[in-house]
Amino acid sequence: MKKLALGVDIGGINTAFGLVDENGDLYAESVISTKKYPYVEDYPAYVEDLCRSMHTLANSLSFDYELAGIGIGAPNANYHNGTIETPPNLWKLREGDSDSGETRRLFHLADDISKHFDGVKTLITNDANAATLGEMIFGNAKGMRDFIMVTLGTGLGSGFVANGEMIYGHDGFAGELGHVCVERNGRECGCGRRGCLETYVSATGIKRTAFELMATMTAPSKLRDIPFADFDSSMISVAAEQGDPVAKEAFRFTGEMLGRALANVVTITSPEAIFLFGGLSKAGKLLFEPTQWYMEENMLFVFKNKVKLLPSGIQGKNAAILGASALIWQSVGV
Amino acid sequence: MKKLALGVDIGGINTAFGLVDENGDLYAESVISTKKYPYVEDYPAYVEDLCRSMHTLANSLSFDYELAGIGIGAPNANYHNGTIETPPNLWKLREGDSDSGETRRLFHLADDISKHFDGVKTLITNDANAATLGEMIFGNAKGMRDFIMVTLGTGLGSGFVANGEMIYGHDGFAGELGHVCVERNGRECGCGRRGCLETYVSATGIKRTAFELMATMTAPSKLRDIPFADFDSSMISVAAEQGDPVAKEAFRFTGEMLGRALANVVTITSPEAIFLFGGLSKAGKLLFEPTQWYMEENMLFVFKNKVKLLPSGIQGKNAAILGASALIWQSVGV
Repeated sequence: MKKLALGVDIGGINTAFGLVDENGDLYAESVISTKKYPYVEDYPAYVEDLCRSMHTLANSLSFDYELAGIGIGAPNANYHNGTIETPPNLWKLREGDSDSGETRRLFHLADDISKHFDGVKTLITNDANAATLGEMIFGNAKGMRDFIMVTLGTGLGSGFVANGEMIYGHDGFAGELGHVCVERNGRECGCGRRGCLETYVSATGIKRTAFELMATMTAPSKLRDIPFADFDSSMISVAAEQGDPVAKEAFRFTGEMLGRALANVVTITSPEAIFLFGGLSKAGKLLFEPTQWYMEENMLFVFKNKVKLLPSGIQGKNAAILGASALIWQSVGV
Repeated sequence: MKKLALGVDIGGINTAFGLVDENGDLYAESVISTKKYPYVEDYPAYVEDLCRSMHTLANSLSFDYELAGIGIGAPNANYHNGTIETPPNLWKLREGDSDSGETRRLFHLADDISKHFDGVKTLITNDANAATLGEMIFGNAKGMRDFIMVTLGTGLGSGFVANGEMIYGHDGFAGELGHVCVERNGRECGCGRRGCLETYVSATGIKRTAFELMATMTAPSKLRDIPFADFDSSMISVAAEQGDPVAKEAFRFTGEMLGRALANVVTITSPEAIFLFGGLSKAGKLLFEPTQWYMEENMLFVFKNKVKLLPSGIQGKNAAILGASALIWQSVGV
């Protein structure tokens, strides 16, 4: 019988999910609101809503199939324990709740969902790791045993694969390349520290760079007409394509920061390829060219001209659902 | 029948080897000169000498045993191919040889040795990776699936284990933590670049630090009486134990550089523990205390107070031979 996996992508606004086969074909998809359930006490109702909606979707297909499992990508997800641990944007404490309430914010999501589906295998990991598995099973990393995925969104996520296996690490939270410190006393990061890679290399990072450059450079720029609050990183791509000097410099600098950081991580895991995924990576040459140049310029001799820098093969609106379903296909050994 | 593995440690001066059982007990050991064979054309004679000497050792035991394999730790060793590739201090070109001669310096050592032993399984990796496997099979990392080994000698070597497996990387050369760039435009490194971690954290690195501090600090110090050429990093430990302010500051700074670098690599592989091995690590608290402090100070929140910083459990003169033999015990699944 045909096998399908449910892939679930939990974001702060919405939760999207779909039925995916082992080739990455999506048979049906749906979505519920996550933000309807903002507080820690809303979590049980969220699980009820999600499971009911997934059952509806699962029953909507016109042919028989076996549900191979449920794979979930979510912030702060712990692969080993099947939990989501103190996520910054989900099921928060109410104002006035004491800090010790944080201990309540350990959500056994994998078990809680599996119960509603006759105990079917349910796996969970963070969204960047899910995208990494998607790349491995459905994308451009097929057949690769050692590679790195870098996801460029509001922040910078990453997944590391070595010996054909995802590196989850001892505590299940490995792969936080976005929080490698690249500049001592550098930009303030949401994590409470300074100089993290994602404060430079991400949609937010390049926006910060553009504003810094408008202060340090005197060149005219269309970007000078846009207020900070209306500013979107895609405006920098558009301006750079038109030859805007501030926008072009913003991409060069972003590529430099990313290229230097990649040269460093290559010394650790020596990957066959590094994939760039997500919004900022769609700027194409604007980002890839300086990144590649600075990566090679700073590479240890033994690794020079060996590591491919490639665009993700699973870009597009369903990448997150495919990636989450890949958790299941990976575990059953497609 | 009892099984033994030959562990071989190839250094620039000597090659040491010994017969080791799966518990790490050493039954016999011997040594030949490596530096008697300095040039690329001496390599075949080196292999002959080494194999003859290993046969003599293998025949010297008074009981019957099965040779499970030969494990070799050597600089620039490629695990995947069984080769040593353009090693800086072994089997060099003669002066006047053209640079293109480097292509000749690809040594198929694993095959060349295996031939002399009826094709027995022969595996090779760099010395830091061999030490890492030694820690995993015989030392303090027994049973750990995710850990990092840092070897502090003249340089800084490392080995990364994830999911219970050594990370060799796509090209077989992964784990070069010593060449992560930690200071842009920092100290010159033997690799031709600048600011590599090992220019700060190694026996050579702390010596450079001590000399820098004698220039920047005004405090009196016994170290000021020792000429650069006679200087040995162990003198810094001795002075620091006696309260010498320059020596103490040298260890604090070394610990800071190492601690910051470890906080960064933890975000990548999230290990259960990090082991420090080799000369400089024997300074004990002098090195461990500042390293631990700066590691935690710079750690991403989710990893704080989770990662153990521990001394190696395989210190001692036979660590390199045990580590090399561990290549075999690891591969047969002890």
